[in-house]
Amino acid sequence: MDVQDVLKRIVPLDERWLAQAQERLDRLAIPRGSLGRLMELGRQFAAIRRSARPTITRRKIFTFAADHGVVAEGVSAFPREVTRQMVFNFIRGGAGINVLARHAGVDVAVVDIGVDYEFPPLEGLIVRKVARGTRNMAREPAMTRAEALRALEVGSELARAAAADGCEIIGTGDMGIGNTTPSSAIIAVFSGLPAAQVTGRGTGISDAALAAKIDAIERALTLHRPDRSDPIDVLATVGGLEIAGIAGLILGAAAEGLAVVIDGLISTAGAVIAYELNPAVSQYLFAGHLSVEQGHRVMLAHMGLRPLVDLDLRLGEGTGAAVGIWLVEAGVKVLTEMLTFDEAGVTPGA
Amino acid sequence: MDVQDVLKRIVPLDERWLAQAQERLDRLAIPRGSLGRLMELGRQFAAIRRSARPTITRRKIFTFAADHGVVAEGVSAFPREVTRQMVFNFIRGGAGINVLARHAGVDVAVVDIGVDYEFPPLEGLIVRKVARGTRNMAREPAMTRAEALRALEVGSELARAAAADGCEIIGTGDMGIGNTTPSSAIIAVFSGLPAAQVTGRGTGISDAALAAKIDAIERALTLHRPDRSDPIDVLATVGGLEIAGIAGLILGAAAEGLAVVIDGLISTAGAVIAYELNPAVSQYLFAGHLSVEQGHRVMLAHMGLRPLVDLDLRLGEGTGAAVGIWLVEAGVKVLTEMLTFDEAGVTPGA
Repeated sequence: MDVQDVLKRIVPLDERWLAQAQERLDRLAIPRGSLGRLMELGRQFAAIRRSARPTITRRKIFTFAADHGVVAEGVSAFPREVTRQMVFNFIRGGAGINVLARHAGVDVAVVDIGVDYEFPPLEGLIVRKVARGTRNMAREPAMTRAEALRALEVGSELARAAAADGCEIIGTGDMGIGNTTPSSAIIAVFSGLPAAQVTGRGTGISDAALAAKIDAIERALTLHRPDRSDPIDVLATVGGLEIAGIAGLILGAAAEGLAVVIDGLISTAGAVIAYELNPAVSQYLFAGHLSVEQGHRVMLAHMGLRPLVDLDLRLGEGTGAAVGIWLVEAGVKVLTEMLTFDEAGVTPGA
Repeated sequence: MDVQDVLKRIVPLDERWLAQAQERLDRLAIPRGSLGRLMELGRQFAAIRRSARPTITRRKIFTFAADHGVVAEGVSAFPREVTRQMVFNFIRGGAGINVLARHAGVDVAVVDIGVDYEFPPLEGLIVRKVARGTRNMAREPAMTRAEALRALEVGSELARAAAADGCEIIGTGDMGIGNTTPSSAIIAVFSGLPAAQVTGRGTGISDAALAAKIDAIERALTLHRPDRSDPIDVLATVGGLEIAGIAGLILGAAAEGLAVVIDGLISTAGAVIAYELNPAVSQYLFAGHLSVEQGHRVMLAHMGLRPLVDLDLRLGEGTGAAVGIWLVEAGVKVLTEMLTFDEAGVTPGA
């Protein structure tokens, strides 16, 4: 299914489901509203699933891996081969996302959407390589428009398969040395803010590397003048393949009526692309956490999302999404498992 | 064991365990420190358990229930019988704490430490009633000093039993109509702030009830002039039986080397009593969440604790502790289950 068809299938949430959930939440045997945001999570999830008593039986995080030509500009503290090394670590189960996803009862699907390496067949690795990494956006467009569209389709097809598989909630994750650079570039475009204001230290780079990173973003923006009203142009010129995969996953999930918990900076850059293509997607999104990366806050506010936790995370991989999925599920259980005043035989307050 | 003996057994954390955990955290195959507070949680837990690779096999939240004489002053939106009705709801498994504790893999122990009701034998209810509620602190001391000491012992003995039972981490919770009133009174004493500044709307009371609540606290403080340097005097004159139970549980846990996740306002009032008796207890504490109640922030800062989440919760019962226990366990798994650069074959950064 091409991207335009997916976009057409995304509909805003139906207020009636929100109202129906709220009606039950107001009758729970607690002071009204006293479970705060957990109640909001349950309500939003009910509306996404169009169910008064929604359930969660399968949860999956998609961690998209890709390489970035812009690494040639000295924007990262880590060498390019770490992208593929980390893919092996994901498959082995020893990375942060594996540990946190297991703890949250979430499956992890690792997707090679653009790693500059030919993996042997690996149990648990989904190979959907669109290209062996992007080109250096400081010198040429990161992708062709056709590559960007292909990567979006990879993402949306994975969401469709997850829905067919019985998932009710999915999370986004990323691995790609250098990928905070395109993410910050995308955020600069849609926020209208100077690159320096939305660019952070990523993996923990030096002052010199931070200056090189900001410079690379500024040169890319000057060179391509990405068209803000054409999000696919932005994605192609200054984006990344994993960012495109995440954007496509989010579009596909919204079209299928799945809830999506987004991770940090890179996932949010993908979410912004999806949001700019169809703002209704934000109603299907939960922001897992607030990243240390300064551009993150800006983009969450842009989409009207409030992060669930602020734990100084800045790893990516989907780690913040794992925490977020667990919290959304907590909210769903508040809605569906708690007793009302009537059911519990508790006297309501004044 | 009396309270003085428990206090003597509480020792500050050994820096060597913190350093040993940090050494491993620094070698994990991620940018240094990029799992933020989760890494701090794992490190602190390792030091509490005096283990380089600590595990969590049993988790339990103690929800202490008690009644409050000060309810006669019109301080709550709910009638007194709701305390016992909610105890029945806890036993039935339909309350917020049941739902969230199940989600987090945590057991719940409900402790009648002072409910004004004689329960029939109930599976899961621990009866350790010190009195049938406190007296009205606006007119007389809430408890005798002997009652306060007895309630502290109830808590510390439960912690000792939990340790003997194989729990590594416990949480605190409360149920008691009217109990934000003594909690705010305790916070006013130790913060030195006016009652109005540390008193919130609890279950969601009207302006008139809020004024009555502040007035009741001010009258109690004027009448008893609780001695800040004698935390047991503060507890006896303006405290509550569940607050005393929580304080005792925390003291006992610190003495036994258990980690404790505290819930919101009431639990924190209990924690402050414990902290004032021996400041080393704060090293064994994790603050599950930041309550909507305004006094909460003040007391967490007083003890040097930073809340884990801010989800607008104000229910109590231990609900925020359940979320917190899950997050602490996430941090422990980051420390113990993730691979290092060497183990994962990943090239370290510059």
